[in-house]
Amino acid sequence: MELAILFGGASFEHEISIISAVTLKEKLTGFDLHYIFCDQDHHFYLIDADKMNAKLFASGEYKKMPELTLAMAGLSYKKRFSTVTLSMPILNLIHGADGEDGTIAAMLDFYKIAYIGPRPAASVLSYDKRYTKWLAESLGVKTVAYEMLSAKEVRDITTPLPFIIKPARLGSSIGVSVVRDENEIDYALDVAFEFDESVIIEPFIEGVKEFNLAGYRGNDGIVFSIVEEPQKNEFLDFEKKYLDFSRTASVNEADLDELVVNRMRHAFERVYKGLFEGALIRCDFFLINDEVYLNEVNPVPGSMANYLFVDFNKAIGELLKHLPLKKMPRVDYRYIHSINAAKGK
Amino acid sequence: MELAILFGGASFEHEISIISAVTLKEKLTGFDLHYIFCDQDHHFYLIDADKMNAKLFASGEYKKMPELTLAMAGLSYKKRFSTVTLSMPILNLIHGADGEDGTIAAMLDFYKIAYIGPRPAASVLSYDKRYTKWLAESLGVKTVAYEMLSAKEVRDITTPLPFIIKPARLGSSIGVSVVRDENEIDYALDVAFEFDESVIIEPFIEGVKEFNLAGYRGNDGIVFSIVEEPQKNEFLDFEKKYLDFSRTASVNEADLDELVVNRMRHAFERVYKGLFEGALIRCDFFLINDEVYLNEVNPVPGSMANYLFVDFNKAIGELLKHLPLKKMPRVDYRYIHSINAAKGK
Repeated sequence: MELAILFGGASFEHEISIISAVTLKEKLTGFDLHYIFCDQDHHFYLIDADKMNAKLFASGEYKKMPELTLAMAGLSYKKRFSTVTLSMPILNLIHGADGEDGTIAAMLDFYKIAYIGPRPAASVLSYDKRYTKWLAESLGVKTVAYEMLSAKEVRDITTPLPFIIKPARLGSSIGVSVVRDENEIDYALDVAFEFDESVIIEPFIEGVKEFNLAGYRGNDGIVFSIVEEPQKNEFLDFEKKYLDFSRTASVNEADLDELVVNRMRHAFERVYKGLFEGALIRCDFFLINDEVYLNEVNPVPGSMANYLFVDFNKAIGELLKHLPLKKMPRVDYRYIHSINAAKGK
Repeated sequence: MELAILFGGASFEHEISIISAVTLKEKLTGFDLHYIFCDQDHHFYLIDADKMNAKLFASGEYKKMPELTLAMAGLSYKKRFSTVTLSMPILNLIHGADGEDGTIAAMLDFYKIAYIGPRPAASVLSYDKRYTKWLAESLGVKTVAYEMLSAKEVRDITTPLPFIIKPARLGSSIGVSVVRDENEIDYALDVAFEFDESVIIEPFIEGVKEFNLAGYRGNDGIVFSIVEEPQKNEFLDFEKKYLDFSRTASVNEADLDELVVNRMRHAFERVYKGLFEGALIRCDFFLINDEVYLNEVNPVPGSMANYLFVDFNKAIGELLKHLPLKKMPRVDYRYIHSINAAKGK
């Protein structure tokens, strides 16, 4: 089965998207894969599978490959005497801006191209951590208390130390700091504001356990991955996460009570249903006194969280059978006709 | 100054978008206008200004005009020996799906085209009436109590009669019913579910006064329109609203206490700031016991609510000076270089 992996994007997570794509080349052995690179200037290129490695992009060599144009029903490029259109479904593997903020999703919807990935509304709600909190709250899913700070207004932080400062709209731990002492606040804010004009502040809970659970809508409802307790060094910093995006080795299932796992699955299901269909997402939870708290939703997780699935090829194959297509109403010009008729036109 | 009006779209509100565009032709006399029609199949056409009338679209005649391709920095079409690119800013006048759900916004952002209209996140939050409630709530702006019903689950309605049933994601009163009697519920639900798989149910408050206030970010903060009390026949049905979208005559300012007007402006400002920059929006409020309730946000109001502004040409001119551009981070491939260096590559 053919599948095109779309990666890159004009995003702070551009480089880890490349790593994710190189990783999936190794994992998605059950598919006839094509590689579409979106460079930071928003030009698309068809990348030769044999040349898929990180250096190709860092060196700019990719520009020698065929440039693609996005149009109805696929991306295409011109050969000497013909136009080739890639009409297979796309796996949106662009992390951060473009891929997770709804941009690519909206464009693929508009051009009627089937894709794996979050739809525009799901993207907007998971991309901004504040909106994720609203979503969770409306569903009765617990989240950690927080406050927002905008670069445009000076305001005191009311959350007691220690706390975490993170840009409101970035994943991969970019720009995130744990602040333990008052004199670290300004620097941590400067770092976070470098990436977003809004930051979120949450209490830092010493020794809190974090768990990851991925899933997608399959043939008979939601299919869950195993639950992992990621190894962490206080929190995952960017360079560590960067390497993390190239993970392929399966992980050990976290040693958790079945009741707790079911709580996580239940929270996952509530978040997913009616919003994330078409995507394979990873929910990151905190466990506090056996209660499950949603930390964040990764609608395009690093290397698609392949390492959490027993049979990742099967997962992607099943997901491909359940891709929603944006409904487009047909217009019959009834009103214009009736008004013109009334006017005698 | 040049400005391109983009209208149409694959939306239940396709026809009123055409009416809006024809109306703006008459009102935006201070600009050198171009007209870009997005048909229901998502093809773009450059419409000759002299031929701008509703019949051109209903008849399919528009297909004889030059078809446009969306690409970096503008829409373009091929002439015999050259390519013409429309590189002026765009006024997004597509109502409903495509225009107000963030699709067009995401595409214009991606291709770095300046535009008047809501950005993707603002679109998603105002398009779904449920998300608008979350937004208002987080800002301390009151909204009417509501419940959601999904086409996929049978559930009793707990809101007492009479109530309003509306599709969660449509404007222009399409699919909206006032239900006074139990035996009207099924039909009203059927009508609403024809347009969306989720519906919102709100108490119908007999004789509640509704007020409209438009505004945009201008040179010195937000510029407000006058407040209008729209004439209504229970609620505005589609055919009435349809004619409403062709309004050009200025309206009389509602006779309201200054305190109440200030409350509306204050609520408007809280909703607008940091989210709707680049758009001229219309907020519809209810007034209940002198308290202001946000009913809905129209981020692409019918004929841009021109009739609410004393000098509409000035408003659009000022707005054009404050269009945000999506920031795109530059990638320096620092991480890939450092990893390759460590690997000795």
